[in-house]
Amino acid sequence: MDDPIRESGPHLAQLLTHAITGDGPLYRQLADGLKHAIDRGEIAQGTVLPPERALARSLAVSRSTVVAAYDRLKAEGWLDSRQGSGTWVLDPDEDAPTGVDAVATGRVFLTLRGDGHPTGGEQVSTDDDVIDLSVASLGGTGIIADAIAALQPEEIEALTAHHGYQPQGLRSLRDAVAARFTDTGLDTSADQLIVTTGAHQALSLVARQVLQAGDTVLVESPTFPGALDVFRRFAARAVPVPVDGDGLRTDMLADLVARTDPVMIYLTPHFHSPTGAIMPIARRRQLGEIAAETGIVVVEDLALADLAIDDVDLPPPVAAVAEGATVHTIGSTAKLFWAGLRIGWLRSPDSWAVRMLATKTVADLGSPLISQLIAVRLLERADEIRAQRRALLRPRRDLLCRLIEETLPGWQFVRPPGGLSVWATLPHGNADEFAEIALRHGVAVVPGPSLSVDEGNRRALRLVFSRPEPEIEEGMRRLAEAWESYSPLPTPQSSARLLV
Amino acid sequence: MDDPIRESGPHLAQLLTHAITGDGPLYRQLADGLKHAIDRGEIAQGTVLPPERALARSLAVSRSTVVAAYDRLKAEGWLDSRQGSGTWVLDPDEDAPTGVDAVATGRVFLTLRGDGHPTGGEQVSTDDDVIDLSVASLGGTGIIADAIAALQPEEIEALTAHHGYQPQGLRSLRDAVAARFTDTGLDTSADQLIVTTGAHQALSLVARQVLQAGDTVLVESPTFPGALDVFRRFAARAVPVPVDGDGLRTDMLADLVARTDPVMIYLTPHFHSPTGAIMPIARRRQLGEIAAETGIVVVEDLALADLAIDDVDLPPPVAAVAEGATVHTIGSTAKLFWAGLRIGWLRSPDSWAVRMLATKTVADLGSPLISQLIAVRLLERADEIRAQRRALLRPRRDLLCRLIEETLPGWQFVRPPGGLSVWATLPHGNADEFAEIALRHGVAVVPGPSLSVDEGNRRALRLVFSRPEPEIEEGMRRLAEAWESYSPLPTPQSSARLLV
Repeated sequence: MDDPIRESGPHLAQLLTHAITGDGPLYRQLADGLKHAIDRGEIAQGTVLPPERALARSLAVSRSTVVAAYDRLKAEGWLDSRQGSGTWVLDPDEDAPTGVDAVATGRVFLTLRGDGHPTGGEQVSTDDDVIDLSVASLGGTGIIADAIAALQPEEIEALTAHHGYQPQGLRSLRDAVAARFTDTGLDTSADQLIVTTGAHQALSLVARQVLQAGDTVLVESPTFPGALDVFRRFAARAVPVPVDGDGLRTDMLADLVARTDPVMIYLTPHFHSPTGAIMPIARRRQLGEIAAETGIVVVEDLALADLAIDDVDLPPPVAAVAEGATVHTIGSTAKLFWAGLRIGWLRSPDSWAVRMLATKTVADLGSPLISQLIAVRLLERADEIRAQRRALLRPRRDLLCRLIEETLPGWQFVRPPGGLSVWATLPHGNADEFAEIALRHGVAVVPGPSLSVDEGNRRALRLVFSRPEPEIEEGMRRLAEAWESYSPLPTPQSSARLLV
Repeated sequence: MDDPIRESGPHLAQLLTHAITGDGPLYRQLADGLKHAIDRGEIAQGTVLPPERALARSLAVSRSTVVAAYDRLKAEGWLDSRQGSGTWVLDPDEDAPTGVDAVATGRVFLTLRGDGHPTGGEQVSTDDDVIDLSVASLGGTGIIADAIAALQPEEIEALTAHHGYQPQGLRSLRDAVAARFTDTGLDTSADQLIVTTGAHQALSLVARQVLQAGDTVLVESPTFPGALDVFRRFAARAVPVPVDGDGLRTDMLADLVARTDPVMIYLTPHFHSPTGAIMPIARRRQLGEIAAETGIVVVEDLALADLAIDDVDLPPPVAAVAEGATVHTIGSTAKLFWAGLRIGWLRSPDSWAVRMLATKTVADLGSPLISQLIAVRLLERADEIRAQRRALLRPRRDLLCRLIEETLPGWQFVRPPGGLSVWATLPHGNADEFAEIALRHGVAVVPGPSLSVDEGNRRALRLVFSRPEPEIEEGMRRLAEAWESYSPLPTPQSSARLLV
């Protein structure tokens, strides 16, 4: 860009004055205002926008709001940025993502706000001044360093003497995972397993194999948001299935199947994401029967299975009790050890193993072997680490639950027996809006619509309790403060009291 | 399987007697014979086949031939196997891959024979008795162990304290790669780069973004076989572009483009795979002009760029000299360091960066971070390792070339200035057939059709010189012996002499 036009914060603030007095989350209003200004030609293509802090000051909003608005417009192809060169306006007609990709691109932003970050650059939730209760992941401090230190030079030499192409994954890792599955009641051979780059890739591979554009997929509502991204990318139609305290409402399945003719169902039966519910064995059997009858492919994601907090007995995986059904079972090291390890696995029925391996091979010729070797070492210590995680998570969950009860009257939730998050329902209002206000108060949470088909669950939030207690305490204090500012009206309870 | 039927070697040999007296490679005849026997019901579904060694003895063929035939039928869904339970016959109508997937599945086997192995089980080319001149990869002995030992506990702690979701890849790795590209004349920012699970995933991501079923892709002939797998999987039509000593024949491009209306072209301009040719800058410019005019997306794969053997000046990447064209540039640590590290990268035009990141995020939420950290350490030592690799490869290449000249009269080849393989053309005969005979003599090589669109290059072979000298020597001795047995007739030269 030679001689770029530079936009000042105060000038832009003038242009946007009317934009941010509308409805909805502030960052969206700001993003929409910018889009309209670009559309109307008030901001020319190539214009360099003011730094986030400057614009935030001019607009009297938090820097996080501007960051979120810029990020959204970058994800949608309206803006671009580069380290040292600032953020500038793109020609919206040039090379813009279209169709499925535009949807997926737009959506990824939402997911990433919840479960990851799109760049190594500025990130909403790692702003120094924001407490992050949005990312459902624990760090791997200590655990990973120990495992790397435990690698034996001889085993590294033995592995690296090989040319390094092992698309199915290390035999030793598959043996360990097969043994773990077998222990939980699901007979598994190493040949049925493919090592994947996290649970997310496992789901992507099955989707690639099973879904055609326009196919229907049944999905729990709410669910893991990355799954929704995958289904959108394959242009599948996701249909929500409600969950309750026992997970997926299998009593509604037969009717939904008859009405929507799905090819696949995706669920998280061990500590449902994000409610933490455990699906009882009877429901697993019922799902299995329906799947066996109709030929629907079942994908069960057990990524949270290792994060029991209370003394609970997990039933065997759906695959173990669904005779005659096609069930793919997904697991991961992300929640127990560390998400950055990016090692998960896919267990498929015998008859699918070859074609799933072909799909994996075409995708990337296999996941990194050293990370797999580290996973092998970690799985040897799984029981010990599980106990550590439990000791870590129990007081954090209890603290967060207590603070909801004490400081957020009227909020509904069920204390989860495991997992990383609490699913809370507001007594009134809109979760998207409130999450935006919470961000302005310095706490990041994920609103229900980001975890839901068709942006449902508009009154619910996911509150993650993976951060240390002091952060949870401060984050919840800010959340209560935000709620205070969001709810000047009496809550339904108090109005009920007034009426009595 | 309760009470399986067990087939004995001698009985099966009787059934297959006529099958393996036909044309074509022996393992294919055997595979076809087995298929027909299953089809005709002579071998029932559920039958356990004899162990490879037993059947090989009964048929008087090498064990490798039986392994290859079983593997092929497993890849095609006719057989299945499990450690300890042997190999048995599947119902071919049940859950068989169809359409694109069947093609891809069938193909993966071929690729894997060349560049990887489908399972951790039996592998054709690691049989003790087979010398492998088929896999274009060096081991990572020493290099990887040193890099792991060089990781600082503090940097592991700093990285693992983070939640671990970094879809675009480590900033430090992207900075290092950006600096490397910039050094070669291609200005690059870290924001344009995505870390991928090897060069293969980078190509898969671009294909996912660009290709629709039925689209045409121009591909060098011969090429990297994994690329053909990717194009097949996306149901694209690959159209071959011939190569010569200067790589891709750009003089033929305008005509091919006009006739076939391609959306994408894939090439390996730095040490073409498998001929080792370097594409001169004039051809790069010509390609860039055609791409800029027509909007064809160019994908250049520089995976072999670091394996210079002779003193050569590599021109800048196509992306640096193709103004106005859309060029994606792929790189990898696989050939310089170790393929099992599975760390590569994709450099896209600025305007594509966001949507490529969305595609990567949907695929797997990012590649393993510890493997990326190891790659950062290794890139710091890239010059040193490049010199080591060169010192290792030069005598191996020279030995292999000398042995072709001395022991395989009539074979044509050009000594490659870099890379890992020699592309040799037989004076007569069929490379598929001859590769099969070579395997029976205990040496694995990849026939031209496995590296070619439409199974072209039927008289050419890829000979990899990455193995230690004693193996190359023994392998080439076996290859000469195989050629002896394959060419009882006088070679064209000698017949010419007879006629004089």
